[in-house]
Amino acid sequence: MGIETFLTRPLAPALERGGRDDDVVMSTRIRLARNIDGVPFELKMSDSDQKAVLKAFEHAQTRRPNDVPELILFRMRDLSPLVRAVLVEKHLISPDLMEKEGGAVVLSDDEMVSVMLNEEDHVRLQVFRPGLDLSGAYALSSRIDDWLEETIDWAFDETLGYKTSCPTNTGTGMRASVMMHLPGLVMAKRIQALIPAIQKVGLTVRGVYGEGSEAEGGVFQISNQVTLGLSEGEILENLEGIVRQVIEHERMSREMLKQSLGVALEDRIFRSLGTLRYARSLSSKEALTRLSDVLLGVYLGYIEGLSAKKLSALWVSIRPGFLQYTAGKSLDAGARDMARARLLREALR
Amino acid sequence: MGIETFLTRPLAPALERGGRDDDVVMSTRIRLARNIDGVPFELKMSDSDQKAVLKAFEHAQTRRPNDVPELILFRMRDLSPLVRAVLVEKHLISPDLMEKEGGAVVLSDDEMVSVMLNEEDHVRLQVFRPGLDLSGAYALSSRIDDWLEETIDWAFDETLGYKTSCPTNTGTGMRASVMMHLPGLVMAKRIQALIPAIQKVGLTVRGVYGEGSEAEGGVFQISNQVTLGLSEGEILENLEGIVRQVIEHERMSREMLKQSLGVALEDRIFRSLGTLRYARSLSSKEALTRLSDVLLGVYLGYIEGLSAKKLSALWVSIRPGFLQYTAGKSLDAGARDMARARLLREALR
Repeated sequence: MGIETFLTRPLAPALERGGRDDDVVMSTRIRLARNIDGVPFELKMSDSDQKAVLKAFEHAQTRRPNDVPELILFRMRDLSPLVRAVLVEKHLISPDLMEKEGGAVVLSDDEMVSVMLNEEDHVRLQVFRPGLDLSGAYALSSRIDDWLEETIDWAFDETLGYKTSCPTNTGTGMRASVMMHLPGLVMAKRIQALIPAIQKVGLTVRGVYGEGSEAEGGVFQISNQVTLGLSEGEILENLEGIVRQVIEHERMSREMLKQSLGVALEDRIFRSLGTLRYARSLSSKEALTRLSDVLLGVYLGYIEGLSAKKLSALWVSIRPGFLQYTAGKSLDAGARDMARARLLREALR
Repeated sequence: MGIETFLTRPLAPALERGGRDDDVVMSTRIRLARNIDGVPFELKMSDSDQKAVLKAFEHAQTRRPNDVPELILFRMRDLSPLVRAVLVEKHLISPDLMEKEGGAVVLSDDEMVSVMLNEEDHVRLQVFRPGLDLSGAYALSSRIDDWLEETIDWAFDETLGYKTSCPTNTGTGMRASVMMHLPGLVMAKRIQALIPAIQKVGLTVRGVYGEGSEAEGGVFQISNQVTLGLSEGEILENLEGIVRQVIEHERMSREMLKQSLGVALEDRIFRSLGTLRYARSLSSKEALTRLSDVLLGVYLGYIEGLSAKKLSALWVSIRPGFLQYTAGKSLDAGARDMARARLLREALR
């Protein structure tokens, strides 16, 4: 299977099935950071060190058990900048890995698993699940971690735990994150008060799209900040508890908005649908805002006949890399806005 | 035929056929102001004077020639305020007549002719034509004037001409006006410079919709200011000359906008169509602006399958009186905005 397969579908097959609480939670991700004992860390790595990491992984591949999906390795140096950009847009690789010529990504066919090699850490193992599924994601990540550990010695300290390139990841090396669609809290202007409250309990909240702290399309990622001094189970329990509260707040906000705004909310949602179906030029920012409105409209029952999964896929397919890969050529900002509008018109027809 | 017939169709049958230059000129109107010799003018009229005017007209009706269409008389006092409001929205009566309990309107079935009785003058005879047709409108108005003159003596002064209630109408008593759709000149911001130039040659320009001088929906009425010291032929020639120039300026502006704005213009036009097809609440002002965009889109060839006449009819059917008459009940501003959006969605489906 070539890399093309991953570039022509905006939504991972693993995310297409509905997950738990997926009216609010778009997806769950567990990322484990691991480094190989005896191999220098990121900044001190030589070319042959990088090769050693890839070799270690390839050796493990020969002993892959049946309950770990087949994984295909792609070296960064074999991928064009545009292909790398698309992988970033799909969250399969980090912007950091995109720049590493000695790096590689290892993907499962359904995109449930993505392992980055020679990123900030030697191995960054990611597992994605639809909806809210921290335990499911963690179970598979542990299974893969166990398998790799059969042939690879991780750099590990009895007191600190897993050693990582950046000290903030040392400990469990685990970053658990939940991608949430919170249009109700944004529209009700309650998100500003909620973010510091979440941060106070040691979690991070950031907008997934858009620059800086302004979240475009109402999509936020909530993840654990601390990986040291707590067990994986405690981290996941803490995160899950907060996420459940945010889900409830979001659902209440949606209902309250429906009752208090009434036709004004319906009007806003349908105008967004009209714009997506008719505009000839759409910026990324506007498209995300309007997609968010329309997705809210689907969940509130205003809009029928449009699937939430189809809309979620559009979140990715309207991004600059994806648009240009689909067009088969480089597009300037104006041409991208036109291509984006065309894609949305056709997708939502 | 009852008044209902006139209230359920927004566009006059007389205007449904395409007229000359109707990509820019929506309609032409000639209005002749006449007063009956020996009957006191407006402010000095008694009830019996008003009755005498109606009687004189009814007497003339018995001698109507074949080339004047059948005319039906409706007394204001028999019409509800809402019905009167609809007639004003259709330009069949003036806001002034609406308030006159002793007034009446006389209409031809196709609404090409509307005679107001006991408005500011005893008789205000109006003829409407589609597109630019000053000579056609004038010919019919003269024909009706001649017919009425067979049984009625008009108040006439050999030096001044026809006497009228307000001195500004004295002379020919004629007001010729052309209703023009000028979205190109508005969008190109050339209308501001054009209006004073037109006023300098003795013509009046005013927005047809909206308050004050701000024309909503890009519709302007150009009419003669002076009725004294010029013959009817000179007035019409002068007006027609200017209107032809405005038509050319408007067409050039549209082409220039198409070339200079390109996709941005197409985008604006299609977004307006999307909003009209999807919004759940639309103010009169926004609806007119978006209808204007869409009509421009039809003329520029961007939008297919929508007829200009259908759009012109919507200009009237979205107005407050019409909406309430159609709904069969009084609607507050919020309910009207919803009814307007529903009507537009259904009409443009």
